[in-house]
Formats: sequence, C-alpha cells, structure tokens
Amino acid sequence: MHWFRAARGASTKGATRSSNPIGAERDPKRLVTFSDAVIAIAVTLLVLEIQPPEDTEHLLRGLFELWPSYVAYAITFLLIGQMWVNHHVMFDHIRSADRMLLLLNTLLLMVIAFLPFASSLLAHAFESGHGQRTALIFYGATYEVAAILFNVIWEYARRGRRLLTSTTDNDTARAISRRFRPAPLWIAVGTALGALHPVVGLVVVVAFIPFYWLPIKGEVGSIQRAREQSKGDP
Amino acid sequence: MHWFRAARGASTKGATRSSNPIGAERDPKRLVTFSDAVIAIAVTLLVLEIQPPEDTEHLLRGLFELWPSYVAYAITFLLIGQMWVNHHVMFDHIRSADRMLLLLNTLLLMVIAFLPFASSLLAHAFESGHGQRTALIFYGATYEVAAILFNVIWEYARRGRRLLTSTTDNDTARAISRRFRPAPLWIAVGTALGALHPVVGLVVVVAFIPFYWLPIKGEVGSIQRAREQSKGDP
Amino acid sequence: MHWFRAARGASTKGATRSSNPIGAERDPKRLVTFSDAVIAIAVTLLVLEIQPPEDTEHLLRGLFELWPSYVAYAITFLLIGQMWVNHHVMFDHIRSADRMLLLLNTLLLMVIAFLPFASSLLAHAFESGHGQRTALIFYGATYEVAAILFNVIWEYARRGRRLLTSTTDNDTARAISRRFRPAPLWIAVGTALGALHPVVGLVVVVAFIPFYWLPIKGEVGSIQRAREQSKGDP
Amino acid sequence: MHWFRAARGASTKGATRSSNPIGAERDPKRLVTFSDAVIAIAVTLLVLEIQPPEDTEHLLRGLFELWPSYVAYAITFLLIGQMWVNHHVMFDHIRSADRMLLLLNTLLLMVIAFLPFASSLLAHAFESGHGQRTALIFYGATYEVAAILFNVIWEYARRGRRLLTSTTDNDTARAISRRFRPAPLWIAVGTALGALHPVVGLVVVVAFIPFYWLPIKGEVGSIQRAREQSKGDP
Repeated sequence: MHWFRAARGASTKGATRSSNPIGAERDPKRLVTFSDAVIAIAVTLLVLEIQPPEDTEHLLRGLFELWPSYVAYAITFLLIGQMWVNHHVMFDHIRSADRMLLLLNTLLLMVIAFLPFASSLLAHAFESGHGQRTALIFYGATYEVAAILFNVIWEYARRGRRLLTSTTDNDTARAISRRFRPAPLWIAVGTALGALHPVVGLVVVVAFIPFYWLPIKGEVGSIQRAREQSKGDP
Repeated sequence: MHWFRAARGASTKGATRSSNPIGAERDPKRLVTFSDAVIAIAVTLLVLEIQPPEDTEHLLRGLFELWPSYVAYAITFLLIGQMWVNHHVMFDHIRSADRMLLLLNTLLLMVIAFLPFASSLLAHAFESGHGQRTALIFYGATYEVAAILFNVIWEYARRGRRLLTSTTDNDTARAISRRFRPAPLWIAVGTALGALHPVVGLVVVVAFIPFYWLPIKGEVGSIQRAREQSKGDP
Repeated sequence: MHWFRAARGASTKGATRSSNPIGAERDPKRLVTFSDAVIAIAVTLLVLEIQPPEDTEHLLRGLFELWPSYVAYAITFLLIGQMWVNHHVMFDHIRSADRMLLLLNTLLLMVIAFLPFASSLLAHAFESGHGQRTALIFYGATYEVAAILFNVIWEYARRGRRLLTSTTDNDTARAISRRFRPAPLWIAVGTALGALHPVVGLVVVVAFIPFYWLPIKGEVGSIQRAREQSKGDP
Repeated sequence: MHWFRAARGASTKGATRSSNPIGAERDPKRLVTFSDAVIAIAVTLLVLEIQPPEDTEHLLRGLFELWPSYVAYAITFLLIGQMWVNHHVMFDHIRSADRMLLLLNTLLLMVIAFLPFASSLLAHAFESGHGQRTALIFYGATYEVAAILFNVIWEYARRGRRLLTSTTDNDTARAISRRFRPAPLWIAVGTALGALHPVVGLVVVVAFIPFYWLPIKGEVGSIQRAREQSKGDP
C-alpha cells in the first residue's frame, strides 16, 4: 500500500490554506445532492409541458395529435437522464470541490434546467408545423453549451489530479475524457444539419443518446476500486 | 462467518475491470437519491393538475364538482407511493449499479414522471363525462409499462446474484419476485376491462393498491439482516 | 454500558423474520429523504399559486392587491415548515421503518402535498371577497387530517418502543406525545370558529404556528444523546 | 490531540438537557437536505416563468423578444446558486441545529422560494416597458431580506461557538462574517438606486454576483481540516 499513501500525499500537497487560491475545499457530497435535485426536477417538469387535449369528446384523436410532445418528452428525458449518468461518472472520481468547481457546476445546472423550455419549443414547433428549424437550432445550441461544460468541468477536475480521488487511475481519467470529447462536435454537426433540414438534425442529435448510454470502456467504478483496495491490503 | 466471506467472494468474482461488459459498478446511493427526487416530484406535481374553481361565489358547489380530481389525486398518489415503496424494497437488496441498471431505472422514472399527465386525463374525462374509456386505457397502459419495468429491473439485478447484497438470502429474492410478477397481468386485465366499462377497469386497477401495500412475506429487511449478522459474529 | 446493550437486545427481540407481521424493517433514511423532497416541493410550489399582475402599467397597485396571496404564502410556508420540523423530531427517534409506517407516512405526505391547493383557495377567496368561509373550512379540514396523522404515526412508532432508537428515553417520547396531542383539537376549534367567522378561525389556526415552533421541553436530540453516550463510555 | 479534545469538551459543555433553552440539538444533515431540495426547486422553477412564444410562424422574432426573460433567468439562477454556495459554506462549519436555527433557516428558505415570483415580475416589466422601477424595488427588497437572514443565521451559530464544529478556527469564522456583512448594505444601495433608475439599480445588484462567487479568503474547508487533523495524529 506504499504507492497508494505516497500518491495520496503528493496529490494533497499544495492544497493547504495558503496555496489553494481557488478557495476552501469541501466534500462534494452536497454538490451531488443539489445537482441530483436540480436534474430530477428538470426531468420531471418535462411532463408539465404536455398540454392535455381540451376536447374530451374526441380524446383519442387529441391524444394522437400530441405525438410530437411525447417524442420530445422521451428524447429530452433520455438526454437529461444520460447527462445525470455522466455527472454521476465524473463525481464518482472527484474527491473535493473548490469554489471554481461549484461555479462551473452551477452553470451546467443552469443549462440543464433550461432544457424543458427548449424541449417544449421543439414539441410546439412540430405540432404546429412552423418554426421547426428555429426550434431545433435553439434546442441544439442549449445542448451544445451543456456538452462543452461537461468537458470543462472534467478537465478542470483532472488537471494535475488536483480534485480526483486517489484511487482513480490515469486510464480511467483518460477513458472518461475520451468519452466526453466528441460530444460538442457531434451536437454542433447535428445543430448545423438541423438548420438545413430539422428532421435530419434531430436524428443526428438523437443518435447521440444510445452512444452516450454505452458503458465507458476502461473506467473502474468506486465499488470495484473499494473491492480491489481491500484485496490489496494484507 | 466463513460462509459469508466465501459467498461474497463468489458473487464479486467476475466483476473486475476486464470481465464486466456492462461497465463500471457504482454505489447505488446516488441512483436512489435521484429516484427519490423524481418520484417525490411526480407525486407532488399531481396537485397542480387540480384546477381551483374560478367562481368563488359558489365555491362549495365548485369544490364538490371537482370530486374526480380528488379521487384521481388520491389513487395516483397511493399508486406512485406504492411504487416508491417497491423501489425501496429492491434497492434495499442491491449493492451495486452498472450501466444497464442505470438505463433501466431511468426508463422506469420516465414512466413514473409521466403518470401525472395520465392522471389528469382521467380526472378531466370523468369531470366532463366524455372519453373515460380512452383515458382509462391510457392510464392503465402507462401503469402497465411501469409494472413490466419493475420486473425487468429486479430480474436483471437478481440474475446470478450479480448485483445483490451478500446478506440477501435466496428466499427473500424469490419472495420479491413472487410479489412483482402478478402486476403486469393484473394491470393488463384491469385495462382491458376498462375498454369495456371504464368504472369496472378503474376498480380492478385500484384494487391493486391495497394488495401491493401488504408486507412482502418472507422478505428480510436490511435492519434485520444487520442485526442478525452482528449476532452471528463472535 | 450494560444497561444499554440490554435495552437494545430487548427492544430488538421479537423483530426477527417470523415474529414481525408488519413486514421487513428498514433503515428509515430513505423514508426521510423522500419525505424531505415531498415537503420541500410542496412548500416551493406555493409560489406558483401567486399570479403576477397582468397590468404592468399599474404594477404597484396590482402588487398591493395581492396581499392575501402573500399572507397565504407566509402562513402555509410556516405551517408546512413547522410540520417538517416535527417530522424531523419524530424520525430523530425512530430507528427502523416497517410497512405500516411507510403507509402512514405516505398518507401524511399526500395530505401535506395537498396543502398548496387549499392555500390557493384561501388566497383567492380573500382576494375576491367570496367563499372565505368555505375556503377556510377546506383549509382547516386538510390541516386537521395532517395533525391527526402526526399523532397516529408517533403513537404507532412509540408503542412498545418497537421502532424507537434505543437511546430515546421515555421522558423524551412522552414530551413529544404531549406536544402533538393538542393539535387536532386546536385545529378543529379553529375550523369550527371559521365556519362562524372566517377571520377569527384563521387567527386561531395561525396562532398554532408560534406555539408549535417552540422547542419541545424535555426532548433530548440525537447530537446530545450521542455526546452523553460517549461520555458514559470508559 | 489534547488541545482538540479539550476544545471539544469546552464547546459542548453547557449544551446538555437542562442548560440549552433553545431545545434539542440535532445533526444538521436533514436541515441541509431539506434546504438543498428547496433551493434546487426554486432555481428550477425559474424556467416555468418563461412563456414560450405562441406564434410559431415568427418563432425567431418571438424568441428574441423574450431576452428580458433569459436575462432574469440567468441573473436569478446565479444569485440563488450563489446563495446555495454560501449556505453550503455556513453549514460546512455548523455541527448541530437547535430549534431557533431551524426557524431562521425556514424563514430564509421562504424568502429564497419567493424569488422566482420576483424574478418573473422583473422580466415582465422589462418586456412590457412598464413598471420596471416597481419590479426592481420588489426584487431588491426580497433579496435584501435574504441577505439579512444570512447574517443573522451565521452570527447566531457563531456566538459563543455554540453550534460550530470544533475544527472551525476563529479566523475562518471571522472570514465568513466579513464576507456576509457587506451584502445588506450593497443590496440596499442597489435597490435605492433602482428607485431612481431601474437599469442602474439592476447593474449594482448584478455586480454583487461575481463578488460573492469569489472564494472566501482565509476560510479552511472541511476536507482540508480533516486532512490537517489526520496529519496531526501520530
């Protein structure tokens, strides 16, 4: 276990009062609770954007005509759900939060909490048959900012391993970076295609969901790490 | 305690980096917090679907006419509340979450968060006297998907005991399966009956609530298991 | 520490698989998270019931005319906030949750989550000058059910000390009972008076808030108990 | 470690049953969860105040005209986000909560949960071109009350170190006070200037955000304290 103690000592050196200019370091537990709550609310508010048909005499037809709302609900739920999973992945490897990380995370939550609005725009545009192009660009641009912030947060936490847990190996850190990096380009391409043809753009953005739901190859989760470590101990 | 160490070793073997193709395993704590938040919001949003009477001069009459909204509120609150209890039961026995479990759980939450919409449809249909059949089928179908997902999640976690806690005995795992299995059939029958007669269908679906609120015979909870184990130690 | 071990043994005897007919016992932690979330949402949704004045040319006057909404917001926020505090008090002394406790707690949350609706009725009645009597009785009746459920939950948990923590002394349990007991009568009187004169009824119900925010004399909190116990150890 | 035990003993003396008139002391963990939930919901509800344009034929223009809503969203999100960070700072140093702290915290949450209403007033006033002065004073006054409550809560917890963790040094406590103190004056000046010219007032209030997002110089976070302490141990 010597290498472990040594690595830990090294990574925490320089984080004492005088030398950390980004402020007090804290347990990220509360950041995680707060983020879980914001993401959970954003995802649950999506249902409020679906207006029940007023005409109950032809309820079945009314419910069918709402199909763009159901599609927007499912797509945005899975997109935000996938963001939650990736947030979960990041903070499974982050051991402490400084002021800058709190700010970056708040900006990310600000964008995620904005997605229900963008999603309802998209649904209404497809329902009315007007403004699909504008709505898709708006939706894509919001998502693009979120994808960029994910990369910024992870690279910030990873730099010099300052905020990572000591049990996170470099392969895992690299594997996560590799997964996050294509997102901004992918979404940008989807949004640009949407400016030409909204449905094509939507398909490209949506294709993002299954890819990002795939496990991150080479990542070792906290449960596995705890297990390996306890095995390593005599 | 030898049997315990052995069982634990066996269940975790094959879950190291190379051999778990479903990705990093994580503590399900954050999945649980996120699910609690989504279910709590879904259940609390139900009240927003009740429109207060505009005519305050005849407020009493207006409040009486809202009775289908109160009934829908109570039924859906107790149904979602019971889902929360069963979610709680499952994750009292699950020790780690892989990527597939996160996805299945997100799908389940997507369906639960959709229930306030289905519930308000039901209330408005009974208030207006039109479309009860359609609304009940819609409500039943949503609930059916949730019931199926509960079974899928539990069987996935249980298979080969891969994701279960080591203190969960096989009797408990079987008892939970026995409880979850009838749900999809029950709800399907209720929904089908609702296509013939909405009130009959509703009664069958609602009869589901008290049955599922009953304790699961043969299940041993985490508090009891911790107690037994500490007794077993010398 | 002998008395402590003995007491703990005694209180857990009879809670093993065969002898607890109310089902598996669980750590109440998740019940607490779920309740916190539902209560937090109920209390935050209150603000959605305040309709901003549409006429921005006479915004100041419009904002003044909303005074019943502000009063209803403050009263209901403090009432629900006080319920949260009392929920917190109870579960500071409850060590495990069985199926019945989960059901009773879900019923309590169902009533708390209904309060924003009752609160907005009250505000609109006072704003329009009609239906105050009806709205106050509706509000009082909702609150009455919550007050009764608080007593039922506490007495259920306390009976035979089955679900209490072993460090909760009998004086504390009695002190909490003494605090909870007058609530149903108090609210019933306020509601009945409201049927005669709405403002008088409201004043009686509101007088409840400061009384219930007072500390519970004789209660010893978990932090103090932990401290005393660690002192008691050699 | 002798000084540590001694300090801890001193700070807890006088907090036993007979001598704490403010009631039972509890772990602030649940207060923190509840506050996280309320703040998270308040911040996420902000998006509901943005009304999507009804005219989808000129969606782009409609989206541009909503700029005051986006600005109000971003400002209020960052203000509430910064409040959350400061709440986090305080409770990183508070070890127990008595009845008075619970009440003060509930009052703070009541004001924070009111901010989405004030924020939507501000957005609508700037969109319609009327009532900006009134809306800004309303917004500033709400925020002023929050700023005062932050100071009251921190000074209450700090007095005689009654509720602080034993590892919080006096420099840290002073540093937090120094950061919180200017807020009420700053906001009051911004609000008063807003009565003369709404945009100037808004700029002063908004200038508050980056200042309060800066790290608190001299504060030592819980992670650093835990580390130092473990170093101090032989």
